[in-house]
Amino acid sequence: MSSSQPPVIVNRNILEMEYAVRGPIPQRAATMQQQGQNIIPCNIGNPQALGQSPLTYYRQVLSLVEEPSKIARERTLKDLFEETPYSELKDDDFISDYVLSTSEDILAKSSTGTGAYTESKGFRFIRLAIAKFINQRDGHTGEMSANPEHIFLTDGASDAAKRVLNLLIADENDGIMIPIPQYPLYSASIKMFGGVQVNYYPDEDNDWTLSRAELETSLEKAQSEGVNVKAMVVINPGNPTGAILDAQSIREVIDFAKAHHLAIIADEVYQDNVYGGEFISFAKALGADTVPLFSLHSISKGFFGECGHRGGYLEVRNPPQVAGANLNFIDLLLKQASVSLCANTAGQILTYLMVSPPEQGSRPHALFIQEKEKVLAELHRKATMIRSAFNQMDGVECFGKTGAMYLFPRLNKLPAGKNDYDYCMALLEETGLVTVNGSGFGQKEGTHHLRIAFLPPIELLAEVLPQWIAFHNRFVAM
Amino acid sequence: MSSSQPPVIVNRNILEMEYAVRGPIPQRAATMQQQGQNIIPCNIGNPQALGQSPLTYYRQVLSLVEEPSKIARERTLKDLFEETPYSELKDDDFISDYVLSTSEDILAKSSTGTGAYTESKGFRFIRLAIAKFINQRDGHTGEMSANPEHIFLTDGASDAAKRVLNLLIADENDGIMIPIPQYPLYSASIKMFGGVQVNYYPDEDNDWTLSRAELETSLEKAQSEGVNVKAMVVINPGNPTGAILDAQSIREVIDFAKAHHLAIIADEVYQDNVYGGEFISFAKALGADTVPLFSLHSISKGFFGECGHRGGYLEVRNPPQVAGANLNFIDLLLKQASVSLCANTAGQILTYLMVSPPEQGSRPHALFIQEKEKVLAELHRKATMIRSAFNQMDGVECFGKTGAMYLFPRLNKLPAGKNDYDYCMALLEETGLVTVNGSGFGQKEGTHHLRIAFLPPIELLAEVLPQWIAFHNRFVAM
Repeated sequence: MSSSQPPVIVNRNILEMEYAVRGPIPQRAATMQQQGQNIIPCNIGNPQALGQSPLTYYRQVLSLVEEPSKIARERTLKDLFEETPYSELKDDDFISDYVLSTSEDILAKSSTGTGAYTESKGFRFIRLAIAKFINQRDGHTGEMSANPEHIFLTDGASDAAKRVLNLLIADENDGIMIPIPQYPLYSASIKMFGGVQVNYYPDEDNDWTLSRAELETSLEKAQSEGVNVKAMVVINPGNPTGAILDAQSIREVIDFAKAHHLAIIADEVYQDNVYGGEFISFAKALGADTVPLFSLHSISKGFFGECGHRGGYLEVRNPPQVAGANLNFIDLLLKQASVSLCANTAGQILTYLMVSPPEQGSRPHALFIQEKEKVLAELHRKATMIRSAFNQMDGVECFGKTGAMYLFPRLNKLPAGKNDYDYCMALLEETGLVTVNGSGFGQKEGTHHLRIAFLPPIELLAEVLPQWIAFHNRFVAM
Repeated sequence: MSSSQPPVIVNRNILEMEYAVRGPIPQRAATMQQQGQNIIPCNIGNPQALGQSPLTYYRQVLSLVEEPSKIARERTLKDLFEETPYSELKDDDFISDYVLSTSEDILAKSSTGTGAYTESKGFRFIRLAIAKFINQRDGHTGEMSANPEHIFLTDGASDAAKRVLNLLIADENDGIMIPIPQYPLYSASIKMFGGVQVNYYPDEDNDWTLSRAELETSLEKAQSEGVNVKAMVVINPGNPTGAILDAQSIREVIDFAKAHHLAIIADEVYQDNVYGGEFISFAKALGADTVPLFSLHSISKGFFGECGHRGGYLEVRNPPQVAGANLNFIDLLLKQASVSLCANTAGQILTYLMVSPPEQGSRPHALFIQEKEKVLAELHRKATMIRSAFNQMDGVECFGKTGAMYLFPRLNKLPAGKNDYDYCMALLEETGLVTVNGSGFGQKEGTHHLRIAFLPPIELLAEVLPQWIAFHNRFVAM
């Protein structure tokens, strides 16, 4: 039942906000699925929804941390089995000592397990482990080391991005530079917090690289319109483009941010998803430069794909001074975190496991590496299969070194009056493939794209790609 | 290292927002603890941090859902054991069939387990279970039944409250009525979203009841100042007061909201925490009235206390019409939820278990009831112990039927120049008891209070209460 009261005026920013990844195309797909049609959901980077298995090690540990009494029981079972083996059970049917002691160690360090609120920033032992992971990844020591007090555990990276944007946008003239195309979390959040979206355009034909000239043009245009640009977002590897940013582009961004006193928000959630190219973190590239940097990572992507558990972290480097207050930026992030109490503990534990893989030589290590390499090799193979299919589609080009979980081909040839939304909807109706039209992410005027997450099982791709090629060549010839 | 860039102007709302529950007193407590002093953290309703054990049933199921391969293994172990019992193992060392099949059932209904993003609203099978729970709790059938499409799973109730407030506050003249004292999530969120906090005062000396006259006075005052009041928050059982709202007060609220076209935000996270009084849900009291109602529940409180897992739900009844848009309020909540992708899955699973306790007669049922009753009986006993201590403290009065996890005594006698903040800080220094001063929640001018969460183990309370009494009578006589 609806209220019989007069209509209510709601927050205009939320009313006007757009979020295409979960928009009309996936809604149509949901309806088709309810009607019994086969759907291949490539609209979201949601690997486990497409059959990717969770990593054995992560789940073994998480499961024990959630039910600590099992640890002692596992030890009892093992002891009994060693004395009097049941022929039906193999050694592999028992949880390794390494997993048992890792779980015990987590419980001891947490002191309260998963059922209590943690510190607002997240468990301190996890923040220490994250700092260590960052230092090892980037070769940082001494002064350059990550500071565990500048790390916040969050409910996924989206949560972290929103907090930073909410703090930085102080009024309706404050602008945030975002790449076009972009992950719509950014445009939606900037809208929600009442700021100005300032677009900049990576060079698609040049593998989505960034040039200082393009960044300056974007900034000048915004400033000429009275916008006070505070920060720029970089997504590397890219979403939706999937492209890996090269060292030169990263250096251009840092020099540009330094020259114009901007903060950098580096969305690096796909740092483990590079197939051939090299990931360079902004923290590493920054070196001793004191540009404020907010870098985001997440358990949702990589080779683990634990999207549902909503875990991630924000690392702050060179926190900005806060005007007119004796609080620093970290205090403000802490206050903001306090209102949400803490990030969920299962997500925190998985974040810990992400930054602390099983040690070399330990019992779970071999299987861990095997599972990891299988997932990454399959992702690479799927991306390659789809790229090859593009070669057979009239007027389709796809740029950039492959990273993340996405390809973002440009549709150079569409029938008159049709755009990429029409194309994606028709593709869905005909083949069951759910993709997102380029306009959902933003794109250069007059161009058309789509984003496909290269996640479906290989056999399914092998089946649907010929259908897509046939559909495509028919559609564009209409 | 800090940035060498010029100071940045940040969001003033976040800069000015206050959040006392995690403010200077708990910060001082943390320092004392680091220095090796004993601290009794009664500043937060965080039961498992104070030794309360998680419910066996919840964790057994969650643990299996997180590692599904264990289900088959448990069956194998059990079969083997039944054939050839190991004398060292008892039947109780095996997971019951009921737990195994509940876990399988959850996995089957979820279809993607805990590792994938769920629908933005949360798993549909959980929303169906919540609707059933609400209908049973409130005796609703037919037209009055809860609608699973109007239920949203959230990362704790705080998340739900923030979403509703963010949507309702459309500009800086929009006001939200909140009780004084209140849980600072509300004042902080209203501040964060740029609205106006409109205070109303439950009648402390009359067990914190609400009267229509008080509500009208509060509204009139706000309207005379140009404030456009959109909704009122009710917290029942109360936080920080711990008081249970009576039927008459609830009726007054509904009639008042109806007369003035306000929405009701009913924070009912303590609905299982009633010791002697009766909890009446707003959904039940509403009956066929079409006042918009947003009711919140959570896994953090009750007898389960799963704070760290951040689970909860929002149920919307009579969603308001949205002015100037063909989207309805549910669509807007959905869009908002989409930007966060989904609530964390472990929290969702625990929410499912909260609304679906083990069936009577099932193997886990007896233990479940035993654990439930033990926790509730202990909470009641602790509240009673603390209330008795108040009787020995000069000038301390505590009103209301006991509910939630808090007592909120009034300190009628304080030395000249001292307030409740001074009192709580001195209490901490002297006894290690961490409480929150009444001013952290708001209180009638000229009064002083504190909030204590009645969670510490009974032996610890028995030890500290005499120290508190001694401290108190010395402090007020200064």
